[in-house]
Amino acid sequence: MLSKNQIKFIQSLQQKKYRNESGCFIAEGNKLVTDLAPAFDCEWLVATDDWLSAHSDVKANLILPASKDELAKASGLTTPQDVIAIFKKPEYQFSPSDLKGKLTLASDHIQDPGNLGTIIRLADWFGIEQIICSTDTVDLYNPKTVQSTMGALARVKVHYLPLAEVLKQTQIPVFGTFLDGEDMYNTDLTEEGIIIMGNEGNGISPEIETLVTKKLYIPNFPEGRETSESLNVAIATSIICAEFRRRMRK
Amino acid sequence: MLSKNQIKFIQSLQQKKYRNESGCFIAEGNKLVTDLAPAFDCEWLVATDDWLSAHSDVKANLILPASKDELAKASGLTTPQDVIAIFKKPEYQFSPSDLKGKLTLASDHIQDPGNLGTIIRLADWFGIEQIICSTDTVDLYNPKTVQSTMGALARVKVHYLPLAEVLKQTQIPVFGTFLDGEDMYNTDLTEEGIIIMGNEGNGISPEIETLVTKKLYIPNFPEGRETSESLNVAIATSIICAEFRRRMRK
Repeated sequence: MLSKNQIKFIQSLQQKKYRNESGCFIAEGNKLVTDLAPAFDCEWLVATDDWLSAHSDVKANLILPASKDELAKASGLTTPQDVIAIFKKPEYQFSPSDLKGKLTLASDHIQDPGNLGTIIRLADWFGIEQIICSTDTVDLYNPKTVQSTMGALARVKVHYLPLAEVLKQTQIPVFGTFLDGEDMYNTDLTEEGIIIMGNEGNGISPEIETLVTKKLYIPNFPEGRETSESLNVAIATSIICAEFRRRMRK
Repeated sequence: MLSKNQIKFIQSLQQKKYRNESGCFIAEGNKLVTDLAPAFDCEWLVATDDWLSAHSDVKANLILPASKDELAKASGLTTPQDVIAIFKKPEYQFSPSDLKGKLTLASDHIQDPGNLGTIIRLADWFGIEQIICSTDTVDLYNPKTVQSTMGALARVKVHYLPLAEVLKQTQIPVFGTFLDGEDMYNTDLTEEGIIIMGNEGNGISPEIETLVTKKLYIPNFPEGRETSESLNVAIATSIICAEFRRRMRK
């Protein structure tokens, strides 16, 4: 049985303030919890008896059997699940030299949790091990972000850092998409680099733009046609990552 | 001034039932309304006096000046805007022969309004003029879908049709992404074709799968690495569309 205070604590993790205070984040649902469990320390595992007996391999500091009603009360989802896990946020070390020879993504103030989650998922698909987020990027541990990573959070390291400082310290190419950029299909794409992803409404900020060493453009079709003014940030990122990876296969 | 019943009517358009009854849909915010206004008949234009005097070129059957408070009451957004428009849903004719020689997208039960909207936006970017949606696809006129098309709705025709029937009637290639598909970079991609996009949880349904003439796979990187099991449907669609269009440029 869950106490009122336990339910309150679980609910509080919907908010960034309480995630920061406790150093914890929440994940709901069988698939997400079992995907994340091998990668993060599990503080609380709150689940139905049935779920717990089927998943005795999932370890936690505290296991709390709960009824479906209690899970529904604690849940942040409209369709509550059989399990809620509270994981400890990991602490990753970062050194600019880690980016050498690799492709890395960087968020310049991405605000939508679903976009960030989708980007983490596609980074995982394309073997991008690290994402640098400007400190004003939406919180990685927002439950909507965690949910939309579909478990990729377990394999991609996300760092919150002063982005401009990081870019100044690295000696590797910095890419970004701009409407006046170079056609990406006619451009050299290097094996190492940082791809900047801009804010949903405002794109890449002027300060970060000055640090971009190569501006890219994703050509629309047919070229020159009147069209949407831009692509969603996760969409643009996926098209660019796919093209970087296609070139490396040759 | 808006009457209670007018506010009620505007609010009712958040629901599919009332959109179907009235044949109308709602769009909020300056950019969206001005993008859609040239393409659709505007029934009601509900806006502040300031907005109306700055946009006297936007025509509507009924213009309703409203206070910010009234707009906030009628709005479906958390941050209400200066203008709400009620547009008539267009009626498009469809004939399978329209798909000849062209690239078309088809939704097999996409459920997330944001995904459908993002897909309409990228279709517009890549010059894809038509999207066929299975009748169980999320409603195009869901306000969240309309919002996330960012105006592309004005340029892409979306048809709700029995998808299997349409595929049986056309003689053109049908593509879909599958984990056991052929590496898309080593596959002939034709100028004409229908790209099937599957449901978020279940992928492409067994019935539609039998109608796919070429199964594609978006290679992950490095190949064979353990990774996320799949990409978000809008992400996968964008990578495939970009590759089809890249080939056509050669």
